[in-house]
This record gives sequence, structure tokens and C-alpha cells, in this order.
Amino acid sequence: MSDLSEKPIGVFDSGIGGLTVMRALTRRLPGESFVYLGDTARLPYGTKSPDTVTRYAVQCAGAVSEKGIKLLVVACNTASAVAIGPLTKALYPTPVIGVIEPGADAAVKAAPNGRIAVIATEGTVKGGAYMRAIKALKADAEVVQKACPLFVALAEEGLTEGDIPERVARHYLEDLLNVADKPDCLVLGCTHYPALSGVIARVAGPSIKLVDSAETTAEAVARLLSEHGLERRTAPTPPRFLATDAPERFARVGETFLGRHIDPAKIELIDL
Amino acid sequence: MSDLSEKPIGVFDSGIGGLTVMRALTRRLPGESFVYLGDTARLPYGTKSPDTVTRYAVQCAGAVSEKGIKLLVVACNTASAVAIGPLTKALYPTPVIGVIEPGADAAVKAAPNGRIAVIATEGTVKGGAYMRAIKALKADAEVVQKACPLFVALAEEGLTEGDIPERVARHYLEDLLNVADKPDCLVLGCTHYPALSGVIARVAGPSIKLVDSAETTAEAVARLLSEHGLERRTAPTPPRFLATDAPERFARVGETFLGRHIDPAKIELIDL
Repeated sequence: MSDLSEKPIGVFDSGIGGLTVMRALTRRLPGESFVYLGDTARLPYGTKSPDTVTRYAVQCAGAVSEKGIKLLVVACNTASAVAIGPLTKALYPTPVIGVIEPGADAAVKAAPNGRIAVIATEGTVKGGAYMRAIKALKADAEVVQKACPLFVALAEEGLTEGDIPERVARHYLEDLLNVADKPDCLVLGCTHYPALSGVIARVAGPSIKLVDSAETTAEAVARLLSEHGLERRTAPTPPRFLATDAPERFARVGETFLGRHIDPAKIELIDL
Repeated sequence: MSDLSEKPIGVFDSGIGGLTVMRALTRRLPGESFVYLGDTARLPYGTKSPDTVTRYAVQCAGAVSEKGIKLLVVACNTASAVAIGPLTKALYPTPVIGVIEPGADAAVKAAPNGRIAVIATEGTVKGGAYMRAIKALKADAEVVQKACPLFVALAEEGLTEGDIPERVARHYLEDLLNVADKPDCLVLGCTHYPALSGVIARVAGPSIKLVDSAETTAEAVARLLSEHGLERRTAPTPPRFLATDAPERFARVGETFLGRHIDPAKIELIDL
């Protein structure tokens, strides 16, 4: 009998946005231990080239893997979109789960008419990974995409309610929404965007469902653990947090995303 | 006789914002050649810790210095604020000029009542470098500071006019401006902010002068070249651009800052 099941689940993100995925994971899998790495020194990934994102992501995955994990969750949409192949190869045989496929799956289920809008970073939109993942599940889906870079800055600053984020949301979403055939759902294709879901939902209106890949990713992780008999049997240990820079800022801003207190003194600073 | 005067002036920034400084330099010193490095893979510096900013800045300075320069301009406010000492040491005997001292100098001149407001990145504000530089020139100056992180995202996206940037400017500047003794001037302490100067000036009102360190930095460089007899004598060569990532984005967004066309094919991609 292997003790692989006792090992933590690794999660990494370009920064702190991935804590929304961690939040969904800890809620769905309260009996598991987690180690989270935020590459805060080099964020954001969303405006970087695929080559650079891949290089950084593989370094992050290696650092998390060194801590001894049973599974890696790539919480960053941009890294999931451009680097899932190299990441899977680098960590083999440890399984790697990104957020794009679970997000695409949820989108297709939330779109009875097959009309799906995706909002994400420049990198994710350009790479077209959501487009491909959705079409693989439903070939005749109509997918529109839009990069919303300011959402990241707003979420990072905690400016998630009120006039400014609402106007920014309208600025980005007008083109997507002012069409004859409105989309059935709107995929929040960046881990930062759920922090703005209140404002986005109001601008989108009640007929458009918001799809957040965090929940479906947690579901995919639960399924994989169950299928491989990898569920932890003993009580979980407290989550470990690693960051490549600014642990204080990680703790302060990260609390909004994780929904619970983070002690800055307990964040391990690592160099990649 | 040394041919040092024939060498280009090196300029580096965390990304493309420093092209506003390059613009002022080429205007003030049309007879000089320039080599510009934007650390686009690792931007922004403004939210990173002083240690990380120093490490990245010294790497950048080394890469620019390798091209053979007669002087280095640190166009990035954050790097100037936290790393000017290590940079000066690393490049010795090549002179290094940051943007903080020239900015402080301009601020003191623009503030007859000694009331100065500084807006900058989180890193620059926390480090208090403007505060120190201004007090060194005028001990009884009253300096207030405010971090305006969204300005960077707005400038990078080219969203520099209209309702959204105006509301964001009001959001940040209200506290600084709604006081009995209004500041005499407002220092734009981040290379991205001059892109928003129209909106900032409107919100600040006609009684508050905007201070942009780009012009005074160019003046400081001109003075140093003249004092050391380092002015170039032959016709200048076209500017060289180096970037650590995404040359296409550098060219596209950078044109707004530089005020002239940049050919993406001519940007050299380097790895730090």
C-alpha cells in the first residue's frame, strides 16, 4: 500500500488569483491537504508570450512537485491554456489538471443554445484554448471571446464593487452582449474574475449564466482522486503557501480570494 | 582621445512605460544614439519587493551595459527608488541617472508653498524615496503620497481618455485634493502616468501643476554629458530596442509612449 494518498494536492498560479480555485478545492475536498505556490515575482502571466509562460509554469510545477504532491492543479488559466502539455510531461507520472477543460465542460452544460462567451486574459484569448476545448465537446457551439485586462488590476486592488468596476465591465462586455443572439453563458476565464462576479453578473443581466471554472475543476479533482483511490485518510494538515515575492501583499490581497485569513509569517518565500 | 562619446545612452525600464523618458531624451538630445531595454517578461516592478526589484534591475543594467554605453538612465521609478545604490555600484565607472532626484528637483521648483503630492506605484510609495529626495532639497516641504496601481493597467491598455480613467483618477486623487491646503504640484512618479496626464490634469484642476520627471531627467542627462564632454559628434544611429518578452506587444503599446512607430521585427528578444 502506497502512502501517496496522504500527500497534499499541489496548486499553482501566476499569483494570488488562483486562491479562488484553492477555495473551491478546500470546500469540495475538506479532508485534503494543500500546498499552493503563487509566482508573485513574475505575475501577471496574461500579457506574456506562450514561450515565457511555459518556461515559468514548468519552473513553478517543479517547485511545487518538490514538496511531494499526489496531483497538481494548474489554477492559472493562462498557464493552463498554453502549457498544459509541457506541464503534464514535466510532472509525469503525477497527474496534472488545468482549469480550461473543466471550464469548457461547465460552459457547454450552461449553454442550451450553444452560445458561449469567454472573457479572459490577452494570452488566453489569443491562444484560443477555451475555443478549442468547447468545440471539442460541442462542435457547433458559437464561441466569442474578449480580453479584459483591467479586471485583473481591479481585483488585485480589491476594487470589486461600485461605479468604477461596473463601468469597466460595461466597457468590455457591451460588444459581447449587444447582439441579437445573446450568449447563454459567460465563462470567467481568469482566476481573478470571480472576485468581480457581482458586478459582471449585474452588467450581463439575469439571462446570462456566469461560469466559473473553479467549481468544476474541484469536481474534476475529486473524481480523479476517487477513481485512483487517492483520497486522504488521516486528518488534513494546514495549507502551505509558497510565493516568489512579497508575502505580505500575498496575505493581504489573497484573503479576498481565499475567503479566510492568511498569516504572512507562514508564507515561504522561494526563488525560481 | 576616447570614443566613449560615440557610444549610445542606455535606458531601461520594467517595461514600456520608460519610453516616455526615452521620448523626452530623444527630444532634448536629438544627436544621441540610444539603446532601450524593457523587462517585459517580469513587469510590473511596482508591486514587487525591494529585493526582487533590485535583483531584476541589476540584471537589466548588466544587459544594457553589455551593449557598450556611456551612461545609463534608469527610467523606471520603482527601480530608481529602491535600487539606485546597487545599480551605481554595479555599473561603475559608467554613470547612472535615475528619475527620482530629477523629479524631486522639478517638484520643489513647482511648489512655491512647499506642498507636494506624489502619485506612484505601491513599491515607490512604500520606499519613500521621493519623500527623502524632496526633503533633502527642501527640509520643510510637506509631502503627501498615494499609490495609484490602476493607472498602470489603464495606460497599458491605452484607455487614457474618457469616463473610466477620469473616475479612476477622481477615486485616487480625492483624498489628496480635498484638503484645505491644496498641493502646489502633483508629481507623476511612475513612467506610465504621463500617458494619463490629460485626465489627471482635469481632475487636479488648473491650480495644481503636474510634474513629470521625464523632462528634468533629460535635462540632467544633457548636463552630465556636457560636463564630461561626452556629447556625440557623429550622426546618431537608429535606436535599438531590447525586450525580455512579447516584442509585438512592446511595439504596439510602446508607440503610444514613445510617440513614434516601433518596428516589432527590429526588437531584440533577450533572456535574463
